[in-house]
Amino acid sequence: MLKGFTAPRSPLGAAALVPSPPWHFAGDVLAVEFWNDPDVSVHTLPTGVELDTKCPGHSVALFTDYQFTAQNNEYLDPARYQSRGFSVLLDAMWKGARIAWCPYCYADNDAALMRGWIQGYPKKFGAVHQTRTFAAPSPASAQLSQDSRFAACMSAHGRLLVQARVTLREKVDRLVGLLDRRVVGRRYFPRLSAGMHDKPAVDELVRCVSDRLLITNIWSGEGELSFPEAYGEELEVLGPLKVGRGYRFSFSYSVTDIEILANLTA
Amino acid sequence: MLKGFTAPRSPLGAAALVPSPPWHFAGDVLAVEFWNDPDVSVHTLPTGVELDTKCPGHSVALFTDYQFTAQNNEYLDPARYQSRGFSVLLDAMWKGARIAWCPYCYADNDAALMRGWIQGYPKKFGAVHQTRTFAAPSPASAQLSQDSRFAACMSAHGRLLVQARVTLREKVDRLVGLLDRRVVGRRYFPRLSAGMHDKPAVDELVRCVSDRLLITNIWSGEGELSFPEAYGEELEVLGPLKVGRGYRFSFSYSVTDIEILANLTA
Amino acid sequence: MLKGFTAPRSPLGAAALVPSPPWHFAGDVLAVEFWNDPDVSVHTLPTGVELDTKCPGHSVALFTDYQFTAQNNEYLDPARYQSRGFSVLLDAMWKGARIAWCPYCYADNDAALMRGWIQGYPKKFGAVHQTRTFAAPSPASAQLSQDSRFAACMSAHGRLLVQARVTLREKVDRLVGLLDRRVVGRRYFPRLSAGMHDKPAVDELVRCVSDRLLITNIWSGEGELSFPEAYGEELEVLGPLKVGRGYRFSFSYSVTDIEILANLTA
Amino acid sequence: MLKGFTAPRSPLGAAALVPSPPWHFAGDVLAVEFWNDPDVSVHTLPTGVELDTKCPGHSVALFTDYQFTAQNNEYLDPARYQSRGFSVLLDAMWKGARIAWCPYCYADNDAALMRGWIQGYPKKFGAVHQTRTFAAPSPASAQLSQDSRFAACMSAHGRLLVQARVTLREKVDRLVGLLDRRVVGRRYFPRLSAGMHDKPAVDELVRCVSDRLLITNIWSGEGELSFPEAYGEELEVLGPLKVGRGYRFSFSYSVTDIEILANLTA
Repeated sequence: MLKGFTAPRSPLGAAALVPSPPWHFAGDVLAVEFWNDPDVSVHTLPTGVELDTKCPGHSVALFTDYQFTAQNNEYLDPARYQSRGFSVLLDAMWKGARIAWCPYCYADNDAALMRGWIQGYPKKFGAVHQTRTFAAPSPASAQLSQDSRFAACMSAHGRLLVQARVTLREKVDRLVGLLDRRVVGRRYFPRLSAGMHDKPAVDELVRCVSDRLLITNIWSGEGELSFPEAYGEELEVLGPLKVGRGYRFSFSYSVTDIEILANLTA
Repeated sequence: MLKGFTAPRSPLGAAALVPSPPWHFAGDVLAVEFWNDPDVSVHTLPTGVELDTKCPGHSVALFTDYQFTAQNNEYLDPARYQSRGFSVLLDAMWKGARIAWCPYCYADNDAALMRGWIQGYPKKFGAVHQTRTFAAPSPASAQLSQDSRFAACMSAHGRLLVQARVTLREKVDRLVGLLDRRVVGRRYFPRLSAGMHDKPAVDELVRCVSDRLLITNIWSGEGELSFPEAYGEELEVLGPLKVGRGYRFSFSYSVTDIEILANLTA
Repeated sequence: MLKGFTAPRSPLGAAALVPSPPWHFAGDVLAVEFWNDPDVSVHTLPTGVELDTKCPGHSVALFTDYQFTAQNNEYLDPARYQSRGFSVLLDAMWKGARIAWCPYCYADNDAALMRGWIQGYPKKFGAVHQTRTFAAPSPASAQLSQDSRFAACMSAHGRLLVQARVTLREKVDRLVGLLDRRVVGRRYFPRLSAGMHDKPAVDELVRCVSDRLLITNIWSGEGELSFPEAYGEELEVLGPLKVGRGYRFSFSYSVTDIEILANLTA
Repeated sequence: MLKGFTAPRSPLGAAALVPSPPWHFAGDVLAVEFWNDPDVSVHTLPTGVELDTKCPGHSVALFTDYQFTAQNNEYLDPARYQSRGFSVLLDAMWKGARIAWCPYCYADNDAALMRGWIQGYPKKFGAVHQTRTFAAPSPASAQLSQDSRFAACMSAHGRLLVQARVTLREKVDRLVGLLDRRVVGRRYFPRLSAGMHDKPAVDELVRCVSDRLLITNIWSGEGELSFPEAYGEELEVLGPLKVGRGYRFSFSYSVTDIEILANLTA
């Protein structure tokens, strides 16, 4: 009897790339809100998802630096289960509900890649870095204090895709304009059988379900953001016409479920 | 209208992690045949697959070093589309047909990872290396000649999983005892909806279909092989009780199709 | 006029692998004290350095996860200037002074490698990871609190070289038995001229000079440590006969100088 | 008695980052000749080196993909001793002798980095890839034949620094205009002692000595080349005003010696 939440399924279930939920995440985020061209970004939306006409083109670029654990002390295996990621989220609507649509997503770890595909995040491999803060003050440690600066970048296969910088201005109680909508993604698994390459086995619009979401140590300030053009990527067409606030905060949440909004294979 | 064989689906279809088939592969292989304990390896087989009682425990360890292209000159984007991989194949039977079952598989590239999952290869990220031969003779270049030695290794997240060595003895016309069976794998894509974690959306037993398979420059000799124990992996239980011949050869083939043997979700 | 503290020297001095001092470092450390066999570890000492007979074989394994900056906001270029490292330090004596001798050292970044060679740390490339703590509580975030567990590991070229674990027991005011001696290393740069391969151009015994060393958030507890055997390394012969306390703390310090104890080329 | 050609010096000498010469190299090269602005490139020359006024600005961009061995079968440890590199060479003169000056150089391996510094190549870490050819024909394998195309790229810390493409036109007997001059570099090892940061311990102009250089399977054709601008690098100012021929060939050579042209510390 083979075991495991994902392949490879194995006698003990220890070889699976991704362990069974619940999944727990904790980390730091650098985020920049921005506005792209709604006439362009509308073309990244799947059927049934519309731009939010109250804030056309409003989007957020999110850099995460986090640790993962499931039920087997995965956080004590840091070579396998720490990860850094990057996502773009667009303000959008689904049947009248405010959502955040995720067209592109990158991570630096194979388990994170596969979790992403299962959750509807279309992850590809990216090298992601963000400035860190440490407990001992130093010119080498960005502090959580006024006028501190943090930077982040993401590249894939040696091509720089995103650069961001945030100058902290004030500690705030809550995020405004980001992470206040549930994220919608698309679970997509193609068929390889001849004649079926455009008939995916799985094509579901899904809404993420996060448990026990905690956001803390929130600082807001000014953001800078650019999406350099890169061959083989389409991120740059979502690039900022205008850049808004930047945020730096810490987070944790858990995942055990997902909400299927629509089966697009039908 | 979003395009792309896989996610992320995008306006132009250029962002997809994996381009549409046909897929073409060309590369070099170092292979070692071995026998593991059939009482153990039988437990890595899915329902309906049986060990081949004519050669119980006979298996092959395959290291590949290859280039990939689809229809857009992907071979001219070597940072994205070169890959190195490792697979184990067990001699097995499916409804009376001789097959090679693939329980574990590793690759060093995100597109290769996802192609693997689509083809039924349960790929995880691994760092794979094999000794190379070059046209200019040198102590630094293993030659394709008698008594030359080639080595290969695979590690995942900093843990050594496989080591192999082959001492060439003679050029041969064809492979004997490996790659003479079609490979069977398992396409597996889980559900994340609460209560459905053990009800995968896709769970298919599949047989690979290779077009225009070419195998050339075949040398055979003596093999050495070990599977060191490593936390979070189950490869070592398939490790060799006895090691047989080693091979070094070059190959190419194409993929546009797959044969679905059974739907295991039913 | 070419500029730069190291090669490549360039018209603007911006291309140099390592910027000019002062260098500032801030980060987190996981450390485990241990005792190895003094009859073995004595053989890793250069001429003039002796084991400390008051604590024969007493050593410490240090995992660092840190950010670097010099005078050009290098901390805002995290892809280049964050680094993780591993060092072994042996309690030793130099002309009657208590020192810590550094026989082996690893880092995951090219600038860190070169800084190491300049400072007398014999760095090689290693992949280093340690469990992290984050501000938002979660099963995924090891907390700085009693009974929390942290793990660390180091591998080089796919071979696991060190594994450690620390279970926190209490917050303490200061470190005892580690980092209370100045580190001594060896600056060594060979000649390649024929006949001179054993006559290095630089061979200096050096003592590190740290400015403004801050150590904070110190927790101590029980340590676990092992040095698995690996081909091409000699770390394992320094492996623990006995393991002592483990520590987790944050640090910062700066470097602008070094003390040359002896010129060994003479 | 500690042993090893480089640090870390160890009881057995097996831990040294770089083994003792003789060093042997074998690999494949993609090269593109180009002309940069001599008024700019002259500023990358050290004292005593001048541009070659017969071919002002003539330079070559070299991508190498190679295997290394010394005396201990290092070629059987491919995870440690395979490497890919990139170099720029400028046509220059030293006291009336035609030389090739190497201002910038990158490699993807720690042993290669250190060998470079010892040989006077100012190596930094770069991710380098080039299209490969394999023995089995396939759309995935660039063939050594007319109109075949090969590409190469180099990035450092996620920033693309060089892109090249060569379209083969004819097999030729020998290289013209590249690798017909001995390479001159600079061995440079700084001091860290306060007040001595601009007084390097080693600063030698050196000419490389290659034994048994073999160049074979030479194809020439048209080259394409660009040096995208990147923060923290000065390669782009050497970028092509005009691009010439491209080459693809295989090579091997050995190194046991170096010629010291001048001691620049004096």
